[in-house]
Amino acid sequence: MITENFKKISQSSNKALVDPTKKIPLRWNVGFTETKNQEPKDLFKATVPGAVQLDYATAHNWPPFYEADNFKQYDWMEDVFWIYKTSFKKPVLKAKDRLYFYAEGIDYQFEIWLNNHLIFKQEGMFTPVFTDLTEHLEKDNEISIIVYPAPKLKGVDVGRKQASQSVKPAVSYGWDWHPRLIPSGIWGHCHLEVKHYSILEDVYIDYELTDNFDSAILTVEVVGQNLDCCSYTWCMYNEDGFLISEKEDKFGDSITTELKNPQLWWPLDQGNPYLYTSIFMLKDIEGNVIDVKNQQIGLRKVELVMNSGTWELERRPMSRSYPPITIKINGREIFCKGTNWVNPEIFPGVITSKRYQKLIDRAIEANFNMLRAWGGSIIGKESFYEYCNEKGILVWTEFPLSCNNYVGTPRYLKVLEQESTSIIKRIRKHPSHVLWSGGNELFNDWSRMTDQSLALRLLNKQCYDLDQKNPFIPTAPMAGMAHGNYVFKDNETKEEVYQWISNTKATAYTEFGMPGPASVDILKKIIPENELFPPRRNTSWETHHAFGAWLGDTWLQLDLLNEYFGEAKTLEELVANGQWLQCEGYKAIYEEARRQKPYCSMAINWCFNEPWPTAANNSIISYPNIPKPSFYAVANSCRTVMASAKISKFGWVEGEIFEAELWVLNDFYKEIPDGQIQAILEIGSTYIELLTWNYSDIKVNQNLKGPTARVLLPKSNENKLTFHLKVVDKEEMNSSYTLKYDQKLERKKDDNILA
Amino acid sequence: MITENFKKISQSSNKALVDPTKKIPLRWNVGFTETKNQEPKDLFKATVPGAVQLDYATAHNWPPFYEADNFKQYDWMEDVFWIYKTSFKKPVLKAKDRLYFYAEGIDYQFEIWLNNHLIFKQEGMFTPVFTDLTEHLEKDNEISIIVYPAPKLKGVDVGRKQASQSVKPAVSYGWDWHPRLIPSGIWGHCHLEVKHYSILEDVYIDYELTDNFDSAILTVEVVGQNLDCCSYTWCMYNEDGFLISEKEDKFGDSITTELKNPQLWWPLDQGNPYLYTSIFMLKDIEGNVIDVKNQQIGLRKVELVMNSGTWELERRPMSRSYPPITIKINGREIFCKGTNWVNPEIFPGVITSKRYQKLIDRAIEANFNMLRAWGGSIIGKESFYEYCNEKGILVWTEFPLSCNNYVGTPRYLKVLEQESTSIIKRIRKHPSHVLWSGGNELFNDWSRMTDQSLALRLLNKQCYDLDQKNPFIPTAPMAGMAHGNYVFKDNETKEEVYQWISNTKATAYTEFGMPGPASVDILKKIIPENELFPPRRNTSWETHHAFGAWLGDTWLQLDLLNEYFGEAKTLEELVANGQWLQCEGYKAIYEEARRQKPYCSMAINWCFNEPWPTAANNSIISYPNIPKPSFYAVANSCRTVMASAKISKFGWVEGEIFEAELWVLNDFYKEIPDGQIQAILEIGSTYIELLTWNYSDIKVNQNLKGPTARVLLPKSNENKLTFHLKVVDKEEMNSSYTLKYDQKLERKKDDNILA
Repeated sequence: MITENFKKISQSSNKALVDPTKKIPLRWNVGFTETKNQEPKDLFKATVPGAVQLDYATAHNWPPFYEADNFKQYDWMEDVFWIYKTSFKKPVLKAKDRLYFYAEGIDYQFEIWLNNHLIFKQEGMFTPVFTDLTEHLEKDNEISIIVYPAPKLKGVDVGRKQASQSVKPAVSYGWDWHPRLIPSGIWGHCHLEVKHYSILEDVYIDYELTDNFDSAILTVEVVGQNLDCCSYTWCMYNEDGFLISEKEDKFGDSITTELKNPQLWWPLDQGNPYLYTSIFMLKDIEGNVIDVKNQQIGLRKVELVMNSGTWELERRPMSRSYPPITIKINGREIFCKGTNWVNPEIFPGVITSKRYQKLIDRAIEANFNMLRAWGGSIIGKESFYEYCNEKGILVWTEFPLSCNNYVGTPRYLKVLEQESTSIIKRIRKHPSHVLWSGGNELFNDWSRMTDQSLALRLLNKQCYDLDQKNPFIPTAPMAGMAHGNYVFKDNETKEEVYQWISNTKATAYTEFGMPGPASVDILKKIIPENELFPPRRNTSWETHHAFGAWLGDTWLQLDLLNEYFGEAKTLEELVANGQWLQCEGYKAIYEEARRQKPYCSMAINWCFNEPWPTAANNSIISYPNIPKPSFYAVANSCRTVMASAKISKFGWVEGEIFEAELWVLNDFYKEIPDGQIQAILEIGSTYIELLTWNYSDIKVNQNLKGPTARVLLPKSNENKLTFHLKVVDKEEMNSSYTLKYDQKLERKKDDNILA
Repeated sequence: MITENFKKISQSSNKALVDPTKKIPLRWNVGFTETKNQEPKDLFKATVPGAVQLDYATAHNWPPFYEADNFKQYDWMEDVFWIYKTSFKKPVLKAKDRLYFYAEGIDYQFEIWLNNHLIFKQEGMFTPVFTDLTEHLEKDNEISIIVYPAPKLKGVDVGRKQASQSVKPAVSYGWDWHPRLIPSGIWGHCHLEVKHYSILEDVYIDYELTDNFDSAILTVEVVGQNLDCCSYTWCMYNEDGFLISEKEDKFGDSITTELKNPQLWWPLDQGNPYLYTSIFMLKDIEGNVIDVKNQQIGLRKVELVMNSGTWELERRPMSRSYPPITIKINGREIFCKGTNWVNPEIFPGVITSKRYQKLIDRAIEANFNMLRAWGGSIIGKESFYEYCNEKGILVWTEFPLSCNNYVGTPRYLKVLEQESTSIIKRIRKHPSHVLWSGGNELFNDWSRMTDQSLALRLLNKQCYDLDQKNPFIPTAPMAGMAHGNYVFKDNETKEEVYQWISNTKATAYTEFGMPGPASVDILKKIIPENELFPPRRNTSWETHHAFGAWLGDTWLQLDLLNEYFGEAKTLEELVANGQWLQCEGYKAIYEEARRQKPYCSMAINWCFNEPWPTAANNSIISYPNIPKPSFYAVANSCRTVMASAKISKFGWVEGEIFEAELWVLNDFYKEIPDGQIQAILEIGSTYIELLTWNYSDIKVNQNLKGPTARVLLPKSNENKLTFHLKVVDKEEMNSSYTLKYDQKLERKKDDNILA
């Protein structure tokens, strides 16, 4: 991404854009010890970035951890010390040069030794290491990195609670869709750097937009070392690579510039996600460029405003109004259609920018404009945000707290302050990031944090101090918002998704799930042949979350499938039925949440992807990037402008009156011209035209409610019906819903039966 | 208070406890000008502390502002500049001495000039002035203080919204029980100080208690100037005045001491509000004491914990649990019975420590353990908190934001940061202060602030940075809490207080009102004789809030009185009826809120006192400190241990079944032995014994629900009945309820009629 822009800039400019830093790669070996001060018996090759678990498995020719229950073999690796080692010859250093060690991230607590000197130690995987080695250099040098055992709160059961005193994603400790597998080791890029002793540590371009967006004042905040005798050159380029502003000076006065009539950064489908590029160069006394920092800049204003109708909802005695959860970008309220983004890999070290890009491309294909980067997972790397910047995807970033009570002990708060500082200072630069959240589901029974929890007050303060540009919420859900349900039919109330979503009125649906099985191909890869069919507990189906994962028989929901369809005779039939429910269930929620706009402002399902192949899960994409049928169903339900039907249940019987309420859903920022929708019922080869709705012009960002179509269901031998909405001359707005049809009369459905 | 402790300390110690600071009093004159750079035409005597309005009125022999509508004459004073002037001769200064100007508070924006040098300027009344005059001293000196016009947001209607961009109590801009009268001028103590150039600016004794309260580590934070060559002596005294710890050293290392098995500070009725005294002395190189700072220290741990039953209240889809609002002191949950404390005077400059003490003594008489120092009012002076420290009263302190949207403009945030820093640093020293709130009713329709408002995020951060010892809430009410109702019978639903309080389930009732008229004596003082009876709109009844103050005909509620009692023939009859409703209404709420413990944790009425004599108001004390009958009724309902009856309505008719549910309410921290309660109905001279309840031992801090007493109401010619609960041999637990009785059968009450 940045390379692309640089190319343009290089073509249009004669500036020296090359970073003068000389980077020296390192080769690593790794081994383990039982106690800290031992030497490892055995060293083997380490891939950096990576994880010690993967290195060990490779060195010992282990089969893939995602097959069957192979992951359980990794258990012991949590509790040993891992020692990385590398050696290098002292490079040639000019008079004012220094040699630095840089690591993007080391997971989790570690010490760095150079030739038997402890030169750095840290608890925390999100704060990069940048440390000066020069003092202790010899002709031949050895660096050892001692990685401590995985952090675990003592005295609690094995599980996520063990993560509740560390700033490490809790998901690795086991979740209902994630095996217990706790990564360790160097998970970011790592090398030596020869640099001048005057350096730029951080350059942050902040900006202030006028109320009518006709001007942006940009201000540079520079953190560095030994800047006294230096000067700087600061160049701003537009998206075409042309220089639009240049400043050259000594340090001292504030560094600002004004952009008149700036191009704004807009999210997907709202305009162009316009990106400027800033190149900030540090120069020594002779004018040589000695350091460079670049930043992509998207100019946009983010507000979190009250949902329509929430001020008025009060009765005496008065409580408070629901907190705001409508995202406003550049003065425009955006209905957020999106998904919960979880870690794409068990081991974050192996995530590449390509991996991110392909997944984000899928999100765009699904017509999503928002990703909630869920707090149980890793914080996204730079390339995640960079691609979202480029594509106009909004990112809601959660700090790594999830489903635990993170008690504000002095030690925990100290690490959280350090880590949140690093996270905020990095991510605030990305226009795609638009919302901070303290973490996931922290104000609920199973977590038991409160508004008084010091950790959340600290995060609020950190965001206030470092990034007032983006709103902060302490957690999700807040009052008025909804998490759940996660099944097609509630185990207790026996309500189907169609009923409970209609009976709920939330300001934002920021988690709702609908389980579906993986494809037959995937199942065959992860489940041994002798366990494959029929699915049973205590097999690889269970370790891959088909049984006993959450409530009841999730995520496969075998009982429910049997109830709707009878016992499946083949794996293929079972998968098809499960995926059918997932498709229709997700459609029902996404479209009803959209119908509830503007009181409702978000529809974000649980979840998008998965970090290993599950047998069944709420995800719409199987690991690594294989869409389930529900992916395409969701993509359809998230089209900016579309025909939609509100349907009351899944199963229909001949002789009943089928009915569906017609809508045009519209999140577009311009008016939609009038048109015509035909409602058609298909059963087998029978097509019945129910009505034609001539809809009027549709106002900017407003839905339109139409007529209710009704028809007496005819006799047929089919077992499904499809309800079609065909938009004349606008095929791209068409929708259809495939439901269960039954020719037999069932006594329990007496109420609606006419014949 | 501090004097009392000092006396004891002086008697037991031979330390030099006298503050070496030489204070020089000043005499002031004041006048006004239309523009800033004019000299006032006329100067008259100013009382300091005080207010320019009072000085002007005194100089011009105006009648009291609280009579009739005299306050309206003060309007023009809002918009002029007020100039204070004083002169003094240069005092003799030793080599290292400096002359400082000190002012406890100047309201609101001002400049201080010495001999035509601008030496200080500030916006904000809560940050004291302490500024060095020495450089510009001449033989004869003149100080001028220019006080700017009252701050007003432009472009909005006259009223509280004008206060929404200043850190000045909004109540002065007019409220439904407060005239529009905006104080200006020097409202705190003010004098010159001759001091050494090495000074203590602030000394804060912080402490950490162990979990089992067997040790306290005290730490001193010193802010001062020119401390390099100085040493300190720090003495800690117990409540009896005996020295228990002494440290002497140079500055450098951290200053701490440990108290083993410390005495804890307990709120009223929970134990002794034990106070230690710290005396911190600054010494010059020869060992002379050159500055002294004292602090009372009450050692206690405050937590805001979840209300019982609030974690479990959830259904799918999940939102969040209600935020915590149960105060826990030293590990013990405290049910807060209290009241909303408003400014005792229109002009805060005239509030003396005596005035505070007499009002707080009343609060104690009312069995209150908590005062909510309401955010529309002034922040309490030192003597307010000192007396609460001594008496064990818990104070909930609100920042001065109320019922407005305080938009986070850079200018407002800057002043708010300065003022909140001063407020927090002062008030955190007082053990009585146990809860910070961002302000009053800010998350409601009529205010329209949200969790995103920068002002509230700033205050949360400020409290996190400066005072983690005390919890912070952004505003009241939060979710789960209740504000209102404020009338005996709801205007719309026609529900009486008995019904709506029973049908409500709140975590805390932190505002509920019940209007009542002032006594006949007071009414005769404030309402001209020709307007006195019957009360009418557009008279002094209205300017004193009897009509048109809030909804409907509040606060006199003439329509309702007529409905219950028919038209009153005399002022005395009217007042008696209004006060009767206020008594029974308040009893109903306080006692039902207590019955809802532990889900409910607070019963705090609106309001305690009033800053000028109202004709009718929710207050239970008339200005300045005259209890209404409701005061005694509330005091009864707030006894730590008492018999209580749950009654369903106010008006009863012969032939109906009267019924009442019997309870023992108990907030005591020890078990209550068993006993016997007799339920007796009194109508005229008829006494009917309904039942005797033998109640068992009552558990610590738990209520006990007893039987429901029932009786067929006999014929009588009386118009009231009284239901008595007599506790055998424990008269102090007795309760009684006086209700309306009617001999006529009314058709609308058919339901309950038997005969």
